[in-house]
Amino acid sequence: MPVTIDGQRLWGRIEAMARLGATPKGGVCRLALDDNDIGVHRQLADIAKRRGFRLLMDDVGNLFIRREGSDPSLPPIVSGSHSDSQPTGGRFDGIFGVLAAFESLEAIDDADIVTHHALECVIWNNEEGSRFVPGCMGSGVYAGVKPLDMAKATRDRDGISMGEAITQLWSCFPDAERRELGTPFAALLEAHIEQGPLLESGGEVLGVVTGMQGMRRFLIEVIGKEDHSGTTPRGLRQDALVDAIAIINALHALFWDGDDAIRFTIGHFELFPNAWSVVPGRVTFGVDFRYSDVETLKNLGDRVAPLAAEAAAHCRVSVNEVVNEPPVLFEGPVFEAIEAAVRSSGQPWRHIYSGAGHDCRFFPQRCPTGMLFIPCEKGISHNEAENAEPEHVAAGAQAIAESLLILDKQLP
Amino acid sequence: MPVTIDGQRLWGRIEAMARLGATPKGGVCRLALDDNDIGVHRQLADIAKRRGFRLLMDDVGNLFIRREGSDPSLPPIVSGSHSDSQPTGGRFDGIFGVLAAFESLEAIDDADIVTHHALECVIWNNEEGSRFVPGCMGSGVYAGVKPLDMAKATRDRDGISMGEAITQLWSCFPDAERRELGTPFAALLEAHIEQGPLLESGGEVLGVVTGMQGMRRFLIEVIGKEDHSGTTPRGLRQDALVDAIAIINALHALFWDGDDAIRFTIGHFELFPNAWSVVPGRVTFGVDFRYSDVETLKNLGDRVAPLAAEAAAHCRVSVNEVVNEPPVLFEGPVFEAIEAAVRSSGQPWRHIYSGAGHDCRFFPQRCPTGMLFIPCEKGISHNEAENAEPEHVAAGAQAIAESLLILDKQLP
Repeated sequence: MPVTIDGQRLWGRIEAMARLGATPKGGVCRLALDDNDIGVHRQLADIAKRRGFRLLMDDVGNLFIRREGSDPSLPPIVSGSHSDSQPTGGRFDGIFGVLAAFESLEAIDDADIVTHHALECVIWNNEEGSRFVPGCMGSGVYAGVKPLDMAKATRDRDGISMGEAITQLWSCFPDAERRELGTPFAALLEAHIEQGPLLESGGEVLGVVTGMQGMRRFLIEVIGKEDHSGTTPRGLRQDALVDAIAIINALHALFWDGDDAIRFTIGHFELFPNAWSVVPGRVTFGVDFRYSDVETLKNLGDRVAPLAAEAAAHCRVSVNEVVNEPPVLFEGPVFEAIEAAVRSSGQPWRHIYSGAGHDCRFFPQRCPTGMLFIPCEKGISHNEAENAEPEHVAAGAQAIAESLLILDKQLP
Repeated sequence: MPVTIDGQRLWGRIEAMARLGATPKGGVCRLALDDNDIGVHRQLADIAKRRGFRLLMDDVGNLFIRREGSDPSLPPIVSGSHSDSQPTGGRFDGIFGVLAAFESLEAIDDADIVTHHALECVIWNNEEGSRFVPGCMGSGVYAGVKPLDMAKATRDRDGISMGEAITQLWSCFPDAERRELGTPFAALLEAHIEQGPLLESGGEVLGVVTGMQGMRRFLIEVIGKEDHSGTTPRGLRQDALVDAIAIINALHALFWDGDDAIRFTIGHFELFPNAWSVVPGRVTFGVDFRYSDVETLKNLGDRVAPLAAEAAAHCRVSVNEVVNEPPVLFEGPVFEAIEAAVRSSGQPWRHIYSGAGHDCRFFPQRCPTGMLFIPCEKGISHNEAENAEPEHVAAGAQAIAESLLILDKQLP
């Protein structure tokens, strides 16, 4: 093949980026557009500029690093992922896909290959949704499925809006050109760690992704009454925690499936005023429900609000659906290019379905789109113990570089 | 009777103190030794100094405002309560008892009455335990049942230790003398709002308190494993929230009593890392259990740790008992003096048992001790809606003033 990525250079960048927001337990806390996250953007941009790559940034804070093609009339072929992490996240989730794309551009540049299409490495803003809720905000706004105004108005726990954080990002990029939101792509590829155990347990190094689970999320608020915990009889209480637990018990029963295929999680839970001597007056919690089948997503998801209302014995309950994303199917030119690159690599590989959601989920209706997975240790992710092997990281980047060149030849 | 308190002056002070830490909903957020709490101390101290009263402060941050008696060899007769509040607390809890005692000293001073014993108004430090856990710290350390070192080492959520906060308090009181911890009292009286519905529903204005519930508190920590919520099957999870809820379900069953006499509350609950996309790796929550009977406190309380261990299916659980306080019985000279003052008032009254814990709980073994309650609206407390009537506040202070004079005559 005409291109060979530099595995050592790539691994060095993985290590360099892991220092930005490093946690004592070996993970990363790099929340969207915090100083460390902006540091990732700036470090890669500085390397890119030395190669003569262009920087483009849009109104929602996505950064595109662009190597020009020979035909300026063609839309770019884009690959990348996100650089933000969970509060106690790992060193690979997101950043691996960014660096695999970046390494591909560098390797193609090192080989002096002239492509027809411009090639771009994208860093999508706020994929994790840990600082600004919900996640996949940069990609969703770019694709036109989420409103820009809502995204910019979202505030973090310190009251800083996403709009203010984007202004801060822009102030660090006086050298970036403006990219219009929604500017078309010729194709979109995303490499990612699997965040599950299948590749490792099967001994495969690469996974060609066939699709992605749908997701529905509900924010449930239970409003009771604060009272003194030493004096108020149970019969006179409106204890928001008691009703929240009744609701969760009912939800656990609703979402129980014998074959353990449904993903049901309550990862966000807060109680107010959170004082030992005070009967809780308010609880908010978040339901995250994911599945591959549209009908099941509809039927079970639509039961959440009525079931919460039934289960609450003493308190008022409100249920707001904050995310409703259908399952995704990958097929067509990008899927085929990734499969061809993976087949020719000689590495063991498989088709694989994505349990996690990713930025590229919004694009199959807009341009040819596909994903590639590499294994992560024990399937552990969203965890400081998250780990991946240097040779798997290199194999993933090599497949992305080759896929970009295959697509450059095949696409109009 | 030889003393008459000034109800208007007292109500004015209630209103003045309610402005320190006032919340938009009409309540108070005045955490122990924050600027507003120190403001209460300073305002009362300044009024006291103009009357020639002395200021004494001890190593744990309790303030004593002292009107001298004729016999300096006698220990003081002390009354008071606390000035700190819950985060969303009311305008009467604690501060009423302080101001009733302070008004009593002023009224006795206005009447030029010479007492044998010195009379003191005490502000106990950190009763609520909202800023520094646990509560009743100032009174507990003074009484010798809690270690000073542990109290001073406790830190608030911003990392400030109680010791540092006490140093800050002292720096605002260059005019205070030092009171040795444990200096004996001739007697201790505490006035308080009932924090329950009995006086109001019975039409009584005053309650002579017969005793106080015992309390046991347990801090339960559930340690699981963080994982990606979209990819990790239920069977591979160690979801700390799932196990925490199993434990709480078991605790609700254990503490259920048909006659609704047991007080069982989970008012403190935190989940980590508290992100929608992450299976919770850790949950901590606090069990608050109160009852009047020593045997039941022992039997049910001792079941908490083994039951939590049994109920947790996937996670490690640790249970730490952080409070174990026996029930209290009030009897003897202070109880009798309060009852005599209340009887002579002509107001409707009753004997009443305290569901809430109060600072004076540590003193019955040390000196004659007693409590007086006034009604609070709908029994609501630890809530910004907490309310009490001016005439009830005045009746309570009048009874305290008279009790002080009765005790001054009767006690050696």
